[in-house]
Amino acid sequence: MVRILAVDLGGSHAACALVEDKAIIARDGITFGDGVTLEAILPEIAEVLRRLNNQHMAQGVGFGFCGLVDARNSRVSSTNGKFVDAVDLDLRAWGQNQIGLPLRLENDARLALLGECAAGAAQGETDVVMFTLGTGIGGVAMMDGRPLQGKHGQAGVLGGHVPVNFNGRKCTCGAIGCAESEASGWSLPLVCAEWPGFATSALQGREINFENVFACAAAGDRVAVEVQQHCLQVWGATAIAAVHAFDPDVLLYGGGVMKSANVVIPFIQDYVNRYAWTPWGKPTVRAAQLGNDAALLGVVPLFQQESGFVR
Amino acid sequence: MVRILAVDLGGSHAACALVEDKAIIARDGITFGDGVTLEAILPEIAEVLRRLNNQHMAQGVGFGFCGLVDARNSRVSSTNGKFVDAVDLDLRAWGQNQIGLPLRLENDARLALLGECAAGAAQGETDVVMFTLGTGIGGVAMMDGRPLQGKHGQAGVLGGHVPVNFNGRKCTCGAIGCAESEASGWSLPLVCAEWPGFATSALQGREINFENVFACAAAGDRVAVEVQQHCLQVWGATAIAAVHAFDPDVLLYGGGVMKSANVVIPFIQDYVNRYAWTPWGKPTVRAAQLGNDAALLGVVPLFQQESGFVR
Repeated sequence: MVRILAVDLGGSHAACALVEDKAIIARDGITFGDGVTLEAILPEIAEVLRRLNNQHMAQGVGFGFCGLVDARNSRVSSTNGKFVDAVDLDLRAWGQNQIGLPLRLENDARLALLGECAAGAAQGETDVVMFTLGTGIGGVAMMDGRPLQGKHGQAGVLGGHVPVNFNGRKCTCGAIGCAESEASGWSLPLVCAEWPGFATSALQGREINFENVFACAAAGDRVAVEVQQHCLQVWGATAIAAVHAFDPDVLLYGGGVMKSANVVIPFIQDYVNRYAWTPWGKPTVRAAQLGNDAALLGVVPLFQQESGFVR
Repeated sequence: MVRILAVDLGGSHAACALVEDKAIIARDGITFGDGVTLEAILPEIAEVLRRLNNQHMAQGVGFGFCGLVDARNSRVSSTNGKFVDAVDLDLRAWGQNQIGLPLRLENDARLALLGECAAGAAQGETDVVMFTLGTGIGGVAMMDGRPLQGKHGQAGVLGGHVPVNFNGRKCTCGAIGCAESEASGWSLPLVCAEWPGFATSALQGREINFENVFACAAAGDRVAVEVQQHCLQVWGATAIAAVHAFDPDVLLYGGGVMKSANVVIPFIQDYVNRYAWTPWGKPTVRAAQLGNDAALLGVVPLFQQESGFVR
C-alpha cells in the first residue's frame, strides 16, 4: 500500500489530499486571491497537509504545479504569470522541513495523466496523450509508461500550442494559429465574433461558451453548427499532430468541453480513423474519468516511478 | 575503432559503404528500376557488402530503410508503396546468413540524424529534431541521445505530416493540411497554380521547383516572393510544433531546399526565436552537413547504442 500526500495547485485553489493507492481517503484545500505568491500560501498548505497526515501514514508529498516543471530536480522552471516566485523556491527542502517527507514536483497536466493511467480511463496503458479542452487547451504525453520530459522538462506539455493554422490568430503564448487560439474557451468568443452571419445567429446576445455553442448547434443554428465543426476540426488536427509525434495507443480527453463528450469523442475517433497514418491500427479516443481528482491520484504513480525520470 | 557496413536503401538506389568511426572508407552501390521487390535486390546488395568487407574488418551491418521500421526488432513495419515485400523479410537472418554479421535495421531518416549527431552538424548534441525539405518533408526526433521510437516504432518520424493548416490541401498520406501538402517539392506546383496572379508571374512557363521559386523571388517577382514566404511560414510553424513536442536544443535542416540555406536557416531561426515557447532559451537552427552520407555515417552510432533502443 502506498500513501502519498497530494497538492494540486491551480490559479485560485490548492486541492490537497491523502491518497492511498487508487483512492483519495481524505481531502481538504485552500483558496486564495489573485496575485498571491507561492511563498505566501505555503505555510497554509503545510498546515493542511500536516492535518491530512495526522496519523503519519504518508510516505511522501506529490506536488502538482500549473507551469513548466523540471520534474527530475523538482524545480519549477517557468510560470505563465501565476506564482512567478515559484522558480526560486526549493520545494523539496520545504517538504522535508515542513512536512518531514520527501517531495516530488510535477507539472499538473502530467500528474493528471499519471492519475488517469493509474486509476482512471487509461488503466494499464503505457502510451497515452491526454488533452484538456477548457478555457485553454492542455496536452501532455506519456511514452512507455512515463510522462515525456524532454531536455528542458517541457516536451509534450504544450499540446495546445501546436500550430494548426500557420496563418491564423495570434495566441496568448505569442505564437500564431495554435490549437488554443483557434478553438478554446478564451478564443471562442473571438472565433464567433468573426464568423460570417454571427450578427443574426442564435448565439447573438448569449454568453459565448462551448455549452451555448453546442446547444445552439444542436438546435440547428447555422453559425453554431459551423463554429462547432470548426472547433472539432481543430481538435482533430491537434489529435493527428499528437499521434504522429508520440505514437500513442490512447488519446484521452478531459476538461469542460467533455460535457459534450457524446459529440466530441466520436468526432475525434472518426477523424483519427480517417487521417492518422498508423499502419499498426488506430489509437482509441476516450473521455477522461477522474475530473479534478486526476492530478491528486497521480501522486502515487509519481512516487512509484522509482527508477527515476526519463526524458 | 568501430567498423560497420552500411546500406541506405532509397527508391531507386542502394548506397553501400564501409564506415569506420566518423569516416566512410569505401563505398559502392546499386541502382534498380521501379517496382522491384526488396527480395529481388538483396542478393546484389549482399554481393556489394561482401566486396566492401573483403578484409573482414566489419563488426556489423547497419541497414537504413525508407519506411516505418520497428528498430527494436529490426523489422520493417510499413512501407509507403516502395518495397512492400519488406515487411515479410527477416533482414536480421539475411545479414547473418549472407554477410555473417549481426544486422540492425533503422528508418533512413533516423539513421541520417544519428549520422549528423555523430559526424556532422550536431556533434555532441543529444536533443535534436531534423527535417529534410525536398520532394517530401522528412522529420525525425532524437531525445536524450537516442532516436525517439514510440510504442509502434513511428514516433517522431512523421514530422512532415503535422497538420499546419487544418483546413488545407489533402496530403498524399490521406490527412489534411500537412506541412508536406502545403510546402514541399511535390505540392509546390499545386500551391503556385492556385496562387493569385500566377498567370502573369515570372514563374509561368518555368518548371516549378524551389530553386526557381527562390530565384524568381530574389529577382522580385511578386508571386514568387509570396509563395516563398508561404513556404517559409509553413516550415516555421512545423519547427514550432517540433520544439513544443520534443523540446530539442537543435533543429537541423537538410534536403534539396538547403541550396537556399542562406534564406531558409535565418528565417526559421528568427521564427523560432519569436514564436517558440521555450523559457530555457532558444533552440539553434542549423543546416545539416553530411547530405546523402548522413544515413551511412549513422550506422556506427546505431551499433554503439549498446544499451538497446528506448522508445
